[in-house]
Amino acid sequence: MIKITLPDGAVREYEKGTTALDIAKSISEGLARKVLAASVNGQVWDATRPINEDATFKLLTWNDTDGKNTFWHSSAHLMAEAVESMYPGVKFWVGPPVENGFYYDMDLGDKKMSEEDLVVLEKKMNELAKKNNQYVRKEIPKADAVQYFTEKGDEYKLDLLNNLQDGEITFYTQGEFTDLCRGPHIPNTGLIKAIKLMSIAGAYWKGDEKNKQLTRVYGVTFPSQKELDEHLAMLEEAKKRDHRKLGKELGIYTMDDDVGPGLILWMPNGTVIIEELEKLAKETELAGGYKRVVTPHIAKESMYLTSGHLPYYADSMFPPMEMDGEKYYLKAMNCPHHHKIFDAEPKSYRDMPYRIAEYGTCYRYEQSGELFGLMRVRCLHMNDAHIYCTKEQFAQEFKAVNDMYLKYFKIFGIDKYVMRLSLHDPEKLGQKYVNEPALWLETEDLVRKVLIETGVPFVEVKGEGAFYGPKIDVQIWSAIGREFTLATNQVDFAQSRSFNLSFTNQNNEREIPLIIHRAPLGTHERFIGFLLEHYAGKLPLWLAPVQVKVLPISDKFIDYAKSVSDKLKKADIRAEVDDRNEKIGKKIRDTELMKVPYMLVVGEKEMSEHKVAVRRQGKGDLGVKSVDEFLAEAVVEIKERKAE
Amino acid sequence: MIKITLPDGAVREYEKGTTALDIAKSISEGLARKVLAASVNGQVWDATRPINEDATFKLLTWNDTDGKNTFWHSSAHLMAEAVESMYPGVKFWVGPPVENGFYYDMDLGDKKMSEEDLVVLEKKMNELAKKNNQYVRKEIPKADAVQYFTEKGDEYKLDLLNNLQDGEITFYTQGEFTDLCRGPHIPNTGLIKAIKLMSIAGAYWKGDEKNKQLTRVYGVTFPSQKELDEHLAMLEEAKKRDHRKLGKELGIYTMDDDVGPGLILWMPNGTVIIEELEKLAKETELAGGYKRVVTPHIAKESMYLTSGHLPYYADSMFPPMEMDGEKYYLKAMNCPHHHKIFDAEPKSYRDMPYRIAEYGTCYRYEQSGELFGLMRVRCLHMNDAHIYCTKEQFAQEFKAVNDMYLKYFKIFGIDKYVMRLSLHDPEKLGQKYVNEPALWLETEDLVRKVLIETGVPFVEVKGEGAFYGPKIDVQIWSAIGREFTLATNQVDFAQSRSFNLSFTNQNNEREIPLIIHRAPLGTHERFIGFLLEHYAGKLPLWLAPVQVKVLPISDKFIDYAKSVSDKLKKADIRAEVDDRNEKIGKKIRDTELMKVPYMLVVGEKEMSEHKVAVRRQGKGDLGVKSVDEFLAEAVVEIKERKAE
Repeated sequence: MIKITLPDGAVREYEKGTTALDIAKSISEGLARKVLAASVNGQVWDATRPINEDATFKLLTWNDTDGKNTFWHSSAHLMAEAVESMYPGVKFWVGPPVENGFYYDMDLGDKKMSEEDLVVLEKKMNELAKKNNQYVRKEIPKADAVQYFTEKGDEYKLDLLNNLQDGEITFYTQGEFTDLCRGPHIPNTGLIKAIKLMSIAGAYWKGDEKNKQLTRVYGVTFPSQKELDEHLAMLEEAKKRDHRKLGKELGIYTMDDDVGPGLILWMPNGTVIIEELEKLAKETELAGGYKRVVTPHIAKESMYLTSGHLPYYADSMFPPMEMDGEKYYLKAMNCPHHHKIFDAEPKSYRDMPYRIAEYGTCYRYEQSGELFGLMRVRCLHMNDAHIYCTKEQFAQEFKAVNDMYLKYFKIFGIDKYVMRLSLHDPEKLGQKYVNEPALWLETEDLVRKVLIETGVPFVEVKGEGAFYGPKIDVQIWSAIGREFTLATNQVDFAQSRSFNLSFTNQNNEREIPLIIHRAPLGTHERFIGFLLEHYAGKLPLWLAPVQVKVLPISDKFIDYAKSVSDKLKKADIRAEVDDRNEKIGKKIRDTELMKVPYMLVVGEKEMSEHKVAVRRQGKGDLGVKSVDEFLAEAVVEIKERKAE
Repeated sequence: MIKITLPDGAVREYEKGTTALDIAKSISEGLARKVLAASVNGQVWDATRPINEDATFKLLTWNDTDGKNTFWHSSAHLMAEAVESMYPGVKFWVGPPVENGFYYDMDLGDKKMSEEDLVVLEKKMNELAKKNNQYVRKEIPKADAVQYFTEKGDEYKLDLLNNLQDGEITFYTQGEFTDLCRGPHIPNTGLIKAIKLMSIAGAYWKGDEKNKQLTRVYGVTFPSQKELDEHLAMLEEAKKRDHRKLGKELGIYTMDDDVGPGLILWMPNGTVIIEELEKLAKETELAGGYKRVVTPHIAKESMYLTSGHLPYYADSMFPPMEMDGEKYYLKAMNCPHHHKIFDAEPKSYRDMPYRIAEYGTCYRYEQSGELFGLMRVRCLHMNDAHIYCTKEQFAQEFKAVNDMYLKYFKIFGIDKYVMRLSLHDPEKLGQKYVNEPALWLETEDLVRKVLIETGVPFVEVKGEGAFYGPKIDVQIWSAIGREFTLATNQVDFAQSRSFNLSFTNQNNEREIPLIIHRAPLGTHERFIGFLLEHYAGKLPLWLAPVQVKVLPISDKFIDYAKSVSDKLKKADIRAEVDDRNEKIGKKIRDTELMKVPYMLVVGEKEMSEHKVAVRRQGKGDLGVKSVDEFLAEAVVEIKERKAE
């Protein structure tokens, strides 16, 4: 018998050679039908692979990232089987799971595949899936593997074999198709209920343009047709809500070849959003006892040697500028500058916690191929702050940060979110992690308790903490269900030491502060990109670049329209008049396109009664109101940052 | 007879060989007594030098920069005469006028001069001045000049002679002292009524530390004792108001070796001032129809080649970063980025004037020896904006900019200011100036008219315009009479062309806009430096980092003090409680030192009546008021940005 330790700590005994599928069945048949793979002693295994030793154990289903990846990886094999049946002699390179599905790179020889062929291929895959073939794992000696692919004439797999050691090589077979593969795979093809091949593209072998171009087919699969339909509907909606498309249409941002890739120029409408977000952050932080600072965008090399960012982080930083015999770097993070401000004046326990905030602009080097709209950029405006506190103050400070997140989630109507608590790995203390075992456990426990107390959904991930302390990645989902990584919170025991930061405690001793790094609103770039998708460009009133457009029915009413607009402006409402010589229908359509929340139509009747006919973006006519009534309502809607 | 054209355009006839002094006497004896030199055909001449040809002519007095410089240059000669009489054998290098006085570099051989010796030297200078010796100009053949200094054994003057051509060499003699000198000089030593030698320092010959160290004596002189006394009092006051001293004491800013010289880290108190200034600018600009933008701090080389900043301005820019085979530069100005935003969407006459503003952060390379506190830095936050307008709109736009300056002068109590209008030189069109003679005259005239209309004091300077249009430098004086150059306005015909900017006019034709560059609040760095001196650190309420400090008489009243402070904070007043266990006297003294505008002392009586005992910084007790009364008054004082 072997001992299997389940995620809740319960230990069960099983026959040696039992499988994850067996264990699942021993719990419930229903559960067994959902099992895609298992985590065995921290490694992802086939659900059908015999377990011969005591193990920590977790079943993996569609709800686990590793389960999903296994599903998609097996789907890539299924696609390869279909391709091979349709294009005999095809040779295969690699077929991994990716963010939303999988792909396989293939050499079709002198044959070609078109978008239309994908439909046929999809049909074939469906046929094969229904056969419910098992994915069979087989350990194979290197010589046999080489012989197999030599006979098959697949030089790509032989190239892969070159880099593998005898004893670590496995084949996986389902139906008629055998692949060199490390695995793991799902139990059988019957689990793949819904298939969509997305696109076809060329891809150079090993990403090198001097090599042959292979054919890459992208696909996505699901355990049910319903999930596939929802996914496709979400993609369709996401296309409409693409922040790059909306960003251009609404005059939010632009980029320019002479400025450089990944460097956002914020246009007037985008700058309004930036300023409203900064106002929100400043208000919230002021109420939370933060002070603000402003720091330069550069520093000497010595600063980043102290912080440890150099040389380790050098690839993500811009190259240095050499001046006066010194190297200067654009900052990729604000922490070191903030530490210098903490250190500029002596601190005592009376000054703690010391919280300093800055919408700091950082520069990070990303490969130009990885840049993407506002989501991957080289210049980031970060809602940054650092809290220097005592150990005793830590839990309360961390809870306050957490509450700030929850406040923001509510304001922006973010209903689905999860915090990923990344912990240290005790075996890597002193190497990957600061060697402070007690402090690690203590802080992790404090963080965990706060997360449990506030009822925030969270998952724990061992061995993904930062070097200097536990890390909390915040993941949020937009209104259409797309996932975004918003921000990172970090607890830091190490940088205070590197920068020699301290305060005098109540016993008149020098004490080293803990540091919380936090950025609840992430960066302007990513957050505004998220908001554009989340709201489909229809920003709530308080965020809208133009809040109210006054539309005179004809030129006769322009003066009245301007008097209404002036009155609104005096109350700090962003109002404009459409004084073009156009029909009212066109004025309304154009204003709808610009997603202005309120339209006030004014004609003879409105002017004589000092009223306005109110239209709400996407809702239509709200009736005639007096200017004062509309103004009072709008002011409240803005002040309270109402969603609608 | 020769024709002399006076500054007002009047032409008078004089005998050939007349002098500036003669001309002055022909106008009035009083005027003649004030004449220090003259501008003859654009060159500064001795007032006693015969004029033999027709000339444009201007008398120079103490009120002219050139007059003052001549006075100080002659004072350097006077000091040299005194030194030679006290230290026979002394050799002289150069003795120019500087910003506030003059110096002379001298080789005293094996003799030494101390601070105490300066008093004796000053006395000697006064004696010599009273002799009323004339400064006599003499043209001298190079051979004779070389012979003179060879006999005198002065290798420094021989070195200077090396670089001079025969025919251009002049000697000046007053009393017993003769110097190799290009001149000009004041008529006689008697004009120098007040003398103060300021300091003594070492200076390497030709600034090269491998050369011999010479003795440099700095002095300053005036036409009256009263002016000297005022100058010394101003210097004394300026020392107390030194922005570097106040900046540290009040927690405004810091610098750090690991960040780099000239790179300001704005501490929490300084950041409050920054944010209040930005708020003022944003309010004012919003009311003025400006929109805001945010742009990156870097751009590719190609952008600065287009703008013309490279290669001409390269020495003032930070060195490039090489990335992806491109050179990127930190921006030294915001204009090109703003032009790109103007150009990002097509513009029509309906969009004009297009005004975009940004507190843009620029980086400029200054020699490390020239860096000085907040006044000369390498990172500047600039109150920048660019107005793109039609020719027809220009006058009104320029007037609006001018009005903005006047509004700011009033808010900050800047009573003395002058605008220096720098014009083109018609002879250098196409070289130093864009070759648009008509546009130059037209724009200069428009600018001049606006300045006259608004009654702003201004002076005109020919040949100092920017390449692309007339320039207006704004000079202001602090409360203690020190001069600061605050900002530059520029009119620009050229960059629209370089960047190919245009709008569609009412005739549906492509038209090139004019651009106004403006920055009325200059940079945060220089302006806050100025404000610290101007207010001696005692900032008006709306700008003060901490506006109100509540001082409980003993611990018993801390809770009440906090309730008062909370109430103030809710009204957006920056209030703090001094909850230290200290005597009230010490609390008041410490708060005075931090220059907090209001102190609210609270004890038994105040608590029971819900009142506060109000003290105003520097004014003392203002009596007991109810919390609400104080609050209402403070809110008004802040909202109206009252000086006190």
